[in-house]
Formats: sequence, structure tokens, C-alpha cells
Amino acid sequence: MSRLLTVAAAQLGPIHRADDRASVVRRMIALMEQAKARGADFIVYPELALTTFFPRWYCEDRAEADQWFEAAMPGPDTQPLFNAARRLGMAMSFGYAELTPEGRHFNSSILVDRAGSIVGKYRKVHLPGHAELDPTRAHQHLEKRYFEPGDRGFPVWNFEGGLVGMAICNDRRWPETYRVMGLQGVEMVVLGYNTPTVNGHSKTETLADRMFHHRLSVQAGAYQNSTWVVAVAKAGVEDGYPLFGGTLIVGPDGKIVGELDHDDDGVLVHGCDLDATRFGKETMFNFAAHRRVEHYELITARTGVGEPLGRAE
Amino acid sequence: MSRLLTVAAAQLGPIHRADDRASVVRRMIALMEQAKARGADFIVYPELALTTFFPRWYCEDRAEADQWFEAAMPGPDTQPLFNAARRLGMAMSFGYAELTPEGRHFNSSILVDRAGSIVGKYRKVHLPGHAELDPTRAHQHLEKRYFEPGDRGFPVWNFEGGLVGMAICNDRRWPETYRVMGLQGVEMVVLGYNTPTVNGHSKTETLADRMFHHRLSVQAGAYQNSTWVVAVAKAGVEDGYPLFGGTLIVGPDGKIVGELDHDDDGVLVHGCDLDATRFGKETMFNFAAHRRVEHYELITARTGVGEPLGRAE
Repeated sequence: MSRLLTVAAAQLGPIHRADDRASVVRRMIALMEQAKARGADFIVYPELALTTFFPRWYCEDRAEADQWFEAAMPGPDTQPLFNAARRLGMAMSFGYAELTPEGRHFNSSILVDRAGSIVGKYRKVHLPGHAELDPTRAHQHLEKRYFEPGDRGFPVWNFEGGLVGMAICNDRRWPETYRVMGLQGVEMVVLGYNTPTVNGHSKTETLADRMFHHRLSVQAGAYQNSTWVVAVAKAGVEDGYPLFGGTLIVGPDGKIVGELDHDDDGVLVHGCDLDATRFGKETMFNFAAHRRVEHYELITARTGVGEPLGRAE
Repeated sequence: MSRLLTVAAAQLGPIHRADDRASVVRRMIALMEQAKARGADFIVYPELALTTFFPRWYCEDRAEADQWFEAAMPGPDTQPLFNAARRLGMAMSFGYAELTPEGRHFNSSILVDRAGSIVGKYRKVHLPGHAELDPTRAHQHLEKRYFEPGDRGFPVWNFEGGLVGMAICNDRRWPETYRVMGLQGVEMVVLGYNTPTVNGHSKTETLADRMFHHRLSVQAGAYQNSTWVVAVAKAGVEDGYPLFGGTLIVGPDGKIVGELDHDDDGVLVHGCDLDATRFGKETMFNFAAHRRVEHYELITARTGVGEPLGRAE
């Protein structure tokens, strides 16, 4: 048996401050047409797909940053993307900066079905970086300034014949992200990211180091929950600031089945058999048979590091 | 600054059913002398280091298996190992089958300081396999028959100038293992394993696949908690049943710093700077700054997979 979901990981090259939403949406539609021509049912775009990665810019007045947020989804600039998806019969997921009617700010992503309806929304839980200007860093990473942490956990949806969840960028480095979805039976995690090529804290960490950590985190999350993971970059140099590429699709055995090798707009298409997730879920990672939750208490009881619990024999 | 703990990962080749404890202890002492000559302060042996990997053998009468358990530690057969450690000033960790005075059975490991005192004991939490004879498998893996799940969680001890924790074999595939220790500030996780070269459930999984999953799990656990991990195999063909090698030491950035390439007795020595764990703990994996425990509830609330939680928008 197989349940095939053909997914397109739609990497975006750089989006500069001066690029307007309409021009980005045109690029996204062009990628959707390529994905359709290659047989995809579901297209996944990166985090903050509609704008530059603005958390690198410090706005003393927080409200100035609202220019990068969407107050409606779809809105006038994004309606053409929804129209194209409906016309092509393509399900999609993309990230954007969400401004709620109550004035709250989230780093969000959505699942949109082939009929063009938004069926799920996720708000980024693991916000990296800092809230105030930090001149010691090689570049700013002000996600904690511009966003609240997500308030919805890590839900999984019945979507296009499978069980699909979302994560965003830094979430992919945290095993809790995948496990919470794994405990809902997730078969495909889709996630977008904007990851600077340079570690703001380290002068010695190389691009190869950073790609290694990216792959390691995604592959471990896939293997340890026996799920597909589709990880999609916004890549290239935005106004002088480089973001790495490395868009990839990982199978439920943790192996990379495809990877992009450039930093421009492009699609990576793979036919993902959702039933291939069963072997791992029924054997090594049969959670019901093997997990011992009575010993995991610290994972929710402690946020940060506390005292070691070892006692003398 | 640096705090150096020079560790020897002491891989054991096969131990057959007919091999007695005294002969195994002699091999372990020979490895300890090699480790000492190469500057090690701390030697780590595999899981069930004193016997063959007996969970592959089915005993209809459970009590028959007690021949493989230790009712005292140290006991008459293991006292020479403790004597050697004290003589050489070597801290050590090894695994063994533990029979308690109350008649309980655990797959255990201990931390022994340079003075020869047992300062910590761990009992394996994630028991793989099954409890009854299963003729559909390529080989039996009866850990759930012979052991109770550990009852002590994943403690971390102040040990030899660092924060050290233990895990055993299958534990290394579960991110909860490392995270519970990470939340106690662990700087070095030591773990032994006996991993069959063949997946009892799969005719297509290769040795390369299995080594990939081994490395992936250990490297991810190290990176995501910024800790050293020392993973030590019992390897080679025991009475016709092959176990893979792959003894390795991983740094707190998730990179392998050394690996054995054979299936025999041998030591892998590395000087581990425990202060090298700080960078990751203070930046990317600064738990206090970035973890969001309010969204991890399912990790302890559910043992097995339950309903997906996504709701319609």
C-alpha cells in the first residue's frame, strides 16, 4: 500500500527591503507553476516568505516594523497566490509575519488545502535571538523583539490524506518540536527557515558547520518520529546579509532524499509515501511499547538547567 | 579555561556463552592498562560488559537466566576490576545485569570514582524488544522478558570534576534521554550498547543504515544538549550472532572526534574539554531563554500516539 503526497519544497532566493509583496508573490506563483508541471500536489515555501528577513533590522520604535506584518490573510497582495493555488489545485504552506486584530505579533505559517481554504495555522514557538540591540553580535537577530512566542503548541492536521504538522526555522533544532507532533502520529512536518550563514556569536563556526547542524537536527527529528520532513530555505544575500540554502526533504528513516545545491528560487519535488512512516512507528519508535513518561518529567517541569539529581549510592 | 577529562571508550569484542566472568574481567583490565598508558582518567565499557548479550536467548524458565546476573557489585569475579581501577587511579563505568536483594532484575550501569567507590547507578529505561518468544523475528531480543524498566530516571552526577550521566544502548535513540540530562547541565553522557548488525524486523536494512541511525542519534543528542557523548560497543560475532562496533566519541557540537573501525577489544582515547560544552549551552541551547515548556505537555501526558490536535481555522 502507499499513500503518495508529492511535495515541492519551494526555496526562495533573497528578498530585499525594497522588494514589494507583489513582486514576491509573482515569484511564488512562478515556483508553483514549476511544481505543478513536475507533478506536485503540495508546495511548501519558507518562513517569512513575503518579506526580507526583517529581524536583522533594529527599529527603536517597535511599530515601525509593522510594515512587514500581514493584518489579513489572504490580503490584497496575497490573494493572487491563493487564486493560483485554487486554479492549479495545489495545496500550500508558507510563513509570514502575522498581526492579529488584537494587535498581537507572531511568526506564523499556514496550511492551505487545494480548494484554497486555510485549514491550519501555526505560530513559531522557539524564537531565537534577543529583544534589544546587541552591538556584540556580528548581526542582529531580533525575533524576541518583534514576535510573541506561539500560543498554539505544535498541532497536527488531517490534511491532503495524511497527518501534517508545521514548524518554523529554529524550531527544527529542538527535539520537543518533532516529538509533540510524533505523539499525534505526524507523517509529514513542513518547515521553512531563514538561517544566517554566519553565527552572530562565533567567529570560527563555518558554513559547513552550520549546514551540518541543520541537517543533523532535521534528520534526527525525522528518524526519531518516523516522519517525512520538508525543510525549505529563504536563501542568498539579502541587502548584504547572507542566508544559507540547503532546502531538503528527509524520509522517515532519517535519510535525505533530495537537496537543493543553490541559493536562488527553485523547487525540489519528491513523491512521499506516507505509508513509509509505518515501519518505524510500529517497531523501533513504537511509542506505546517503549516510552517511559514517568522519567521524562523534567522536560516539562524545568525550563532551564537546574541541579543535578544524581545521589550517592 | 579548560577542564580536561581524558576518557577511554573501551570496546569489547565478542563474549561467548561459554566465556566465564574471570576471562572477561581479564580482558577489561588489559584495556584499562592500555587506557592508562594513553593518559586516560576515565574508562567506559559497554552494556552488559561481563557476559554475552543473553537477551538473544529464550529461557522458558525465567530463573534460568539468573546465571547472567550479578547479585553483588563488586562480587568475587569483578573485585579484580575494582582493584585494578584503584591501583591505576582510573575512574570507570560499565554495564551489567543487576539482580537486587529483593529479586528484581535491571539492565544497569555504574559510575566508579578513582578511589574505587560506586558513586552512581543507572538502570536502563528504554528496554527494546519483546517479552515472549517471537518466531517471526530474525533473532530474539528479549530485554522486556529479562529486565524491568529502570526506576531511577536519568540522573546526572558530579563526577571527576564534571557533570556526568549514563544511558544504555536503545536509550541513545530517544531524545528524552539526553534532554532530561541536559536539564541537569550534563557535560558528558557515557553509554554502552550491544546492537545486532541485523534488524530483526527487516530484511532490507543494511549495516550502513544501522550505523547511520546510531551515529545520527548520538550526534543529535550531543549537539542539542551541548554535551560530550561517549558511546561504547560490545562488537563482533557472539556464538554466530553479529553485533556492530562503531564505538565513538562525539563533541558538544555534535561532531565525531574519534571512532573505532574494528569489532575487537580496543580503546579510543580522547581528551574532552568539559568547558567546550559552554558555548552551546549559553547560545543556541540556552534552555532558560528559549524553551517553551507550556507547549511540551504531550511529551509526558501521552505515552503512545493519540489524536491529532489541529483544529480548523
